[in-house]
Amino acid sequence: MSYKDNLIKIDAYVAGEQPNKTDFIKLNANENPYPPSPKVMEAIHSFNCGALRKYPSANAVGLVNALAEYHGLKPENVFAGNGTDDVLSLCFRAFFNSGKPILFPDITYSFNTVWCEILRIPYEQIKVDENFNINAKDYRRENGGVVIANPNAPTSIGRDLDFIREILDDNRDVVVIIDEAYVDFGGITAIPLLKEYDNLVITRTFSKSRSMAGMRLGYAMGSTDAICALYAAKDSMNSYPVDSVAQAAGIASIGDEEYFRQTLKKVMATRERLTQEMRKMEFDIPDSSTNFIFAQHKTKSARDIFEYLKSKDIYVRYFNKPRIDNRLRITIGTDNETDMLLKALREY
Amino acid sequence: MSYKDNLIKIDAYVAGEQPNKTDFIKLNANENPYPPSPKVMEAIHSFNCGALRKYPSANAVGLVNALAEYHGLKPENVFAGNGTDDVLSLCFRAFFNSGKPILFPDITYSFNTVWCEILRIPYEQIKVDENFNINAKDYRRENGGVVIANPNAPTSIGRDLDFIREILDDNRDVVVIIDEAYVDFGGITAIPLLKEYDNLVITRTFSKSRSMAGMRLGYAMGSTDAICALYAAKDSMNSYPVDSVAQAAGIASIGDEEYFRQTLKKVMATRERLTQEMRKMEFDIPDSSTNFIFAQHKTKSARDIFEYLKSKDIYVRYFNKPRIDNRLRITIGTDNETDMLLKALREY
Repeated sequence: MSYKDNLIKIDAYVAGEQPNKTDFIKLNANENPYPPSPKVMEAIHSFNCGALRKYPSANAVGLVNALAEYHGLKPENVFAGNGTDDVLSLCFRAFFNSGKPILFPDITYSFNTVWCEILRIPYEQIKVDENFNINAKDYRRENGGVVIANPNAPTSIGRDLDFIREILDDNRDVVVIIDEAYVDFGGITAIPLLKEYDNLVITRTFSKSRSMAGMRLGYAMGSTDAICALYAAKDSMNSYPVDSVAQAAGIASIGDEEYFRQTLKKVMATRERLTQEMRKMEFDIPDSSTNFIFAQHKTKSARDIFEYLKSKDIYVRYFNKPRIDNRLRITIGTDNETDMLLKALREY
Repeated sequence: MSYKDNLIKIDAYVAGEQPNKTDFIKLNANENPYPPSPKVMEAIHSFNCGALRKYPSANAVGLVNALAEYHGLKPENVFAGNGTDDVLSLCFRAFFNSGKPILFPDITYSFNTVWCEILRIPYEQIKVDENFNINAKDYRRENGGVVIANPNAPTSIGRDLDFIREILDDNRDVVVIIDEAYVDFGGITAIPLLKEYDNLVITRTFSKSRSMAGMRLGYAMGSTDAICALYAAKDSMNSYPVDSVAQAAGIASIGDEEYFRQTLKKVMATRERLTQEMRKMEFDIPDSSTNFIFAQHKTKSARDIFEYLKSKDIYVRYFNKPRIDNRLRITIGTDNETDMLLKALREY
């Protein structure tokens, strides 16, 4: 017997490649091409570092208050964590204790299956249709919870509130998580439904639309009972997940709506241009409500294009997985990066 | 049926009270009374905030390299996380999968039982003796792992390497975690034993000796296999637990040994003074190897003293728990705070 026999054995989540060099175009992790608000920089550069000797607000009270005000909610309906992955993993732990399988699409954020495995939550992956659409009726069956990303990733497809409402109506006795990581890029938020459905929990991130992937900030919105369960889950793992600097930076970001809107507008304009140009090159691309597109060429192999772009120091995301192994997920970069991508694609 | 039926039910960890006011003396969370190194402030105030648009180094490579060099280890033997609570919870998940009970003292960090409950790890709490000493022989029995804080908390007692070696020798087939959260204040580190014992994992925090509780940084040191298991556990929950600013701040702290030594010296000098003065007032206090003392008065009730100090705006920690409910855990503050504490105790 060795201590090694009892080490954890699990297939962990694999994030987008981070090449060990600096001079390349990185369109593989859905990062924002623009920096965070100058107010975020101000908050960090004027942070009172003496305060670091103390623990942060355990429940990130200032940040939670700012988020609640921003979204027109009460603070007791908001929970902040160390990135959406932290928040979602706590959601899975806090909400899905029925022993019944939870449901999510077969093509969606691939961390879902990992959390289920490690937390021993049974799950069923429901097939999206051949156009990658989620069919709400498929979620009308006995289950322990539902997790839908809207807009979905890596498909980039956003759905309207009738769709969300149908899923919520069919699943009043379980928590339905709507992950709105990408919603700011043209999706439709379910926040107005929080008043009607106490089983709805919405998650958000600062990593995409707020250009703060490096700061690790995510949050959840839901009923007081659901948020209390999240605090219980947090306080059973790590009492202080959000550090003091991140809390200050998050508050600063929330306070700069103008910069936020400008950045979103730029990303969406570039997305429309990239989509149109690539469609002219015979790429099939669903209309995106996110900061990436999900492209398939009519004749060329996605893997070959992926390798070619990589050889040109342009990194996009290729998934070697059934049903999507001939598609590329391409993050929207700056206009200049987009020009270089289009040039490389044309050359190919 | 309601979604509420399946919400998590657990008794979470309760941290030290955080009074909702500013003008008080806070000696209840073992925070350092001195600010972090000026180099930490420099690192934060000169941080390139544009870089926040990108995800941080998922494995905190720069910080891990700095820690490895500092401790004379290889980077593959160091793991960094979002505070020691994050690191320890990942350790419990990564190492204790045998189904056999893990062992730890009945009087030690109270988060241990919470992690066992939530991760469904069986455990046995081994009684410390009447002087709060851990008897190494008590850990010579079949088990799934051992967790010892050295120095221990809230007892403040540090043990030597013979003691650690005995526990390691008796438990070669399981992981033995030595939590060295307080070791810099006069404890004896087990780092030299890492070469001999591949089942040894040591955890550390930036929260106490490095005055960075607000920044959320902790780390583990162990065999390559153990550290790999920690990465697998991390990548099954949250790929990026340590944000980019925290990584930079941690590297800066590690780089300022002189400030670090000065701060430790001040805290230890104040501790000796406080201990001697309180012993004169008939307090029983074990010799502390930490930044707190564990005091019991010969005749007065700990709870009464706790309430009295609170009424004077001095917050210390009182545990309403068997065997330690007549003791106070008092964090070492500044010299001025210590004078005010001593004055209040004399008045009482």
